[in-house]
Amino acid sequence: MTQPLPQLDTNGRLRHLITLDGLDSGLMRELLKRAQDYQCPPGQLPPRGDNLRNWTVASLFAEPSTRTRASFELAARRLGADVLNLDVMLSSRIKGESIIDTIYTLEAMQVDVFVIRDAQPGTVELVARHVGDQVSVISGGEAHISHPTQGLLDALTIQQHKGDFRGLTVTIVGDIRHSRVARSAHCALTALGVAELRLVAPMEMMPELHEFQAARRFSSFDEGIAGADVVMMLRIQKERIAEALPTDIDRYHELYGLTPARLARAKPQAIVMHPGPMNRGVEITSEVADGPQSVMRRQVANGVAIRMAVLAHIAEARRGRAP
Amino acid sequence: MTQPLPQLDTNGRLRHLITLDGLDSGLMRELLKRAQDYQCPPGQLPPRGDNLRNWTVASLFAEPSTRTRASFELAARRLGADVLNLDVMLSSRIKGESIIDTIYTLEAMQVDVFVIRDAQPGTVELVARHVGDQVSVISGGEAHISHPTQGLLDALTIQQHKGDFRGLTVTIVGDIRHSRVARSAHCALTALGVAELRLVAPMEMMPELHEFQAARRFSSFDEGIAGADVVMMLRIQKERIAEALPTDIDRYHELYGLTPARLARAKPQAIVMHPGPMNRGVEITSEVADGPQSVMRRQVANGVAIRMAVLAHIAEARRGRAP
Amino acid sequence: MTQPLPQLDTNGRLRHLITLDGLDSGLMRELLKRAQDYQCPPGQLPPRGDNLRNWTVASLFAEPSTRTRASFELAARRLGADVLNLDVMLSSRIKGESIIDTIYTLEAMQVDVFVIRDAQPGTVELVARHVGDQVSVISGGEAHISHPTQGLLDALTIQQHKGDFRGLTVTIVGDIRHSRVARSAHCALTALGVAELRLVAPMEMMPELHEFQAARRFSSFDEGIAGADVVMMLRIQKERIAEALPTDIDRYHELYGLTPARLARAKPQAIVMHPGPMNRGVEITSEVADGPQSVMRRQVANGVAIRMAVLAHIAEARRGRAP
Repeated sequence: MTQPLPQLDTNGRLRHLITLDGLDSGLMRELLKRAQDYQCPPGQLPPRGDNLRNWTVASLFAEPSTRTRASFELAARRLGADVLNLDVMLSSRIKGESIIDTIYTLEAMQVDVFVIRDAQPGTVELVARHVGDQVSVISGGEAHISHPTQGLLDALTIQQHKGDFRGLTVTIVGDIRHSRVARSAHCALTALGVAELRLVAPMEMMPELHEFQAARRFSSFDEGIAGADVVMMLRIQKERIAEALPTDIDRYHELYGLTPARLARAKPQAIVMHPGPMNRGVEITSEVADGPQSVMRRQVANGVAIRMAVLAHIAEARRGRAP
Repeated sequence: MTQPLPQLDTNGRLRHLITLDGLDSGLMRELLKRAQDYQCPPGQLPPRGDNLRNWTVASLFAEPSTRTRASFELAARRLGADVLNLDVMLSSRIKGESIIDTIYTLEAMQVDVFVIRDAQPGTVELVARHVGDQVSVISGGEAHISHPTQGLLDALTIQQHKGDFRGLTVTIVGDIRHSRVARSAHCALTALGVAELRLVAPMEMMPELHEFQAARRFSSFDEGIAGADVVMMLRIQKERIAEALPTDIDRYHELYGLTPARLARAKPQAIVMHPGPMNRGVEITSEVADGPQSVMRRQVANGVAIRMAVLAHIAEARRGRAP
Repeated sequence: MTQPLPQLDTNGRLRHLITLDGLDSGLMRELLKRAQDYQCPPGQLPPRGDNLRNWTVASLFAEPSTRTRASFELAARRLGADVLNLDVMLSSRIKGESIIDTIYTLEAMQVDVFVIRDAQPGTVELVARHVGDQVSVISGGEAHISHPTQGLLDALTIQQHKGDFRGLTVTIVGDIRHSRVARSAHCALTALGVAELRLVAPMEMMPELHEFQAARRFSSFDEGIAGADVVMMLRIQKERIAEALPTDIDRYHELYGLTPARLARAKPQAIVMHPGPMNRGVEITSEVADGPQSVMRRQVANGVAIRMAVLAHIAEARRGRAP
């Protein structure tokens, strides 16, 4: 059986970022702190740096227009990198060329960082195992398994609004079973010490019992949200509702949609999160999404800041390894 | 009923550019003058600036390879901006995510200018109503309604060849009814004071009577072109010919195609314009398109210059609003 | 009958690069030497320059994710150019707009270099005949005819490993008949003076007799590889095997696949080349592809260096022509 790939270099700094699972909370806090330095008030030009000057970042996403891809592209360019966009899903290219041959080819063109989104579990790690010593691999989302920069930006957003993680109750709602967002949030928030993590979902959308072991599970949203500090809604894939409930979208909304009435059961200052894109009227009403407790736009802004922080950290770590 | 969106800021400078309808002619002349500074002789490297240094311009066009998109991209980059290309037609994304949520997301990533082409009337203005105080929206072409930078580049091209607008007769020929190019040219040229605007088209391609009110209408091209200083041909969509004429492309060309013989009826120094792409042999013959009176390549060059002028003006206006 | 287009300017410097056919070997050697200066050890940031500062390079490839396109894009950006990516195959646009009108349009936006890949023979030269005095055209691959930067990178790779071309035996294996890679390698290696060029292919994949006249032809791979210094494998298009052999892929592999046993018949220090992407198990086994004699990754790295050398040479030549 293969050993899990170490993400850290011998100095204990990040070389790859594939998963938050097992990542040291001190390192997470350092990334959050660094991302905080990349914040800026709206209407100001965003902070920049030259940490990645003369670096080449290759972005391998199957779809050219995802928000995560745009976020990584802006983060890399604001740190001075050249960004090479490739519309390619690695795991679907097996027929034409092996994944590793594609990566070797790009690496030989002197790509320094690969940002990869892939629908097949294991692809990102497979790449990381094969790249050269100075090359880093960052996950932009892997199947239902991992979305580490999303987990970090969610943690940063909570920290900005709540100050400390200890004592917080965080409720995650929706199709947790198929959600890389939920898995990475779980890793981050557990490591950072939230008091209670709750999962709310219909049974078919609950993860297996060996996952999210420390979390409390609720089938009733009203119970799961009671007294929560943070309500994290997930995007619902409409085609999954039919599988999960012997019923329709209206019924899903009735049971698991976040409405003002339901939100009133959480703490008065509770924040509402959503990774986007939203299905208004399904998992969340517009009143809540556009209301004062929604922090979704801050999540997006934090996404760029977190990606800048990760890239800058990786560049610094590489300089630390240079002979 | 909603008020039309003001395009100007409180200093009377452009914040958005969505339509030329109602735009002050002094402001138009200022943009033409500024664009003149971005001209350069062929074979020289193009003028550049740092007016948009550290700005992010997001380009939202459904098709990745339009000439207008390339023109905006080069204009923005030659002024120092980062350009984020997104292959997306906003109005067709309603199913996945609302237009405004897409825009909010990009805005949270610190996009400063949105350049939007959309097939649905009202989308560009809808976006402009929702962006933050420091963000600008520029139309890259909206349905059949508006193409403001095209109108300005057409005006600039006429000014370069004719010096002054007063006293000029301008003839627009083709499917005016469905043409955003014709509408924006009409706004610009009327405001800038051309003496006579003429429309030449088969009845089915004529606009409604309440539009282009000051223009004279001709069904005969020979009459409409007589003594004209400027002949502005429109691209014909071949599939529209069948609807408009009980006949075929050859017959359309016979009635509404610009040939050397027909051009001889205009003033001797008349210029021939076309927004491209051309259907050679349909609305225009190659002899005319490649002849000495054709100014089409100058139009394209002016397109980059006008877009640089608009972007530079908007950046200057924003600095003028800064607290 | 039209004269072949001169690729050189009046100073004998490259203005366009469309084919290696007839190109002076001194000029080739100069490009190889310049590319050598753009090498760098793995793990170092790649060499850069400002030779193309303020230049605009338009890349016209039908598919957005080819390795050649990425290689040109990185080469141009590492020399300071703006790169405009257009997903377009010129020869398939005839319906919408003529090839030349598309080019005139981009040229009017002040594009300095066109890099064009096209499936139709003659398109690249057609464009080169029509661009203005200061504009250059570089082929990124033309039908089955020409791939000049590939030919140069292959020559560079051989030079790096073998020092000199004289005395070398080079064996090209596979679908030579349909291969632009083989044709450009043939031009380069013949001009640079290899001792013997051998072609190995089933009869249906052999070129016409008037082509590759100086080469020796083998139907037996075992004979063609005996004592070779360089073995250049071509990518096999699986759909072509059925046409070429009354048999299947396994049989092709048996007859024309490069295995360790077969490679042992070449010189002990022979190098194995492949332009990528590979079909492992068809034209080459993984043992050979990943073995110590394989130089494929060096070929890719040399690809960026050669494209930088060509672009830098062209920029220098243009400055030399400036009045």
